[in-house]
Amino acid sequence: MLEYKGKNFVCHLDLGIEVLKGKWKGLILFHLTEEPVRFLELQRRIKGISQKVLNEQLKALEREGLVNKKIYPEVPPRVEYFLTKKGADIMPALKIIAEWTQKYMGSEISYSD
Amino acid sequence: MLEYKGKNFVCHLDLGIEVLKGKWKGLILFHLTEEPVRFLELQRRIKGISQKVLNEQLKALEREGLVNKKIYPEVPPRVEYFLTKKGADIMPALKIIAEWTQKYMGSEISYSD
Repeated sequence: MLEYKGKNFVCHLDLGIEVLKGKWKGLILFHLTEEPVRFLELQRRIKGISQKVLNEQLKALEREGLVNKKIYPEVPPRVEYFLTKKGADIMPALKIIAEWTQKYMGSEISYSD
Repeated sequence: MLEYKGKNFVCHLDLGIEVLKGKWKGLILFHLTEEPVRFLELQRRIKGISQKVLNEQLKALEREGLVNKKIYPEVPPRVEYFLTKKGADIMPALKIIAEWTQKYMGSEISYSD
């Protein structure tokens, strides 16, 4: 058994999936893959996410060290979010999972706006 | 938005992680990577898993098409579980997640029997 931050897990994968699961997390990480993005721009790109939820998910990703932010001393201050090395290192696995889902479950998925 | 088996997801990754999450699933999949394994042998190898939970998780993995079983017409019948192509295709991603967890969180993990 593993213990991490006071919680028990049966293996590294169990813990890793716990950190990654969360309805919007994957989508947020994907949108930060290419470049740093400002909060409002992130919210614009991710259809259906509320300001509150985006804020919570970014904070959770920051706590886990997958995302970081840079605050530019302007008026008003400009804040950009970006992937850390830890965040960037998990993207290949997330890409495989997304493609695997499309390949094996695509025929049973219906899409809506 | 995506709909799959009556549930809504924001993206393919969100759906994929939903199928993969589950405390013991990753460990069961890992133990089936090399060869087909019988139920009791699986239970013996996966420390701490109860017969009931192993049975439930195997059924869930079967429903999602990641695992299948072969029943040999012997007395008593011999049942072996094995990875399907869909199951085998996700293993590289699970391996990356497990190694990523060890690399980035290993220093904060404590191990117990």
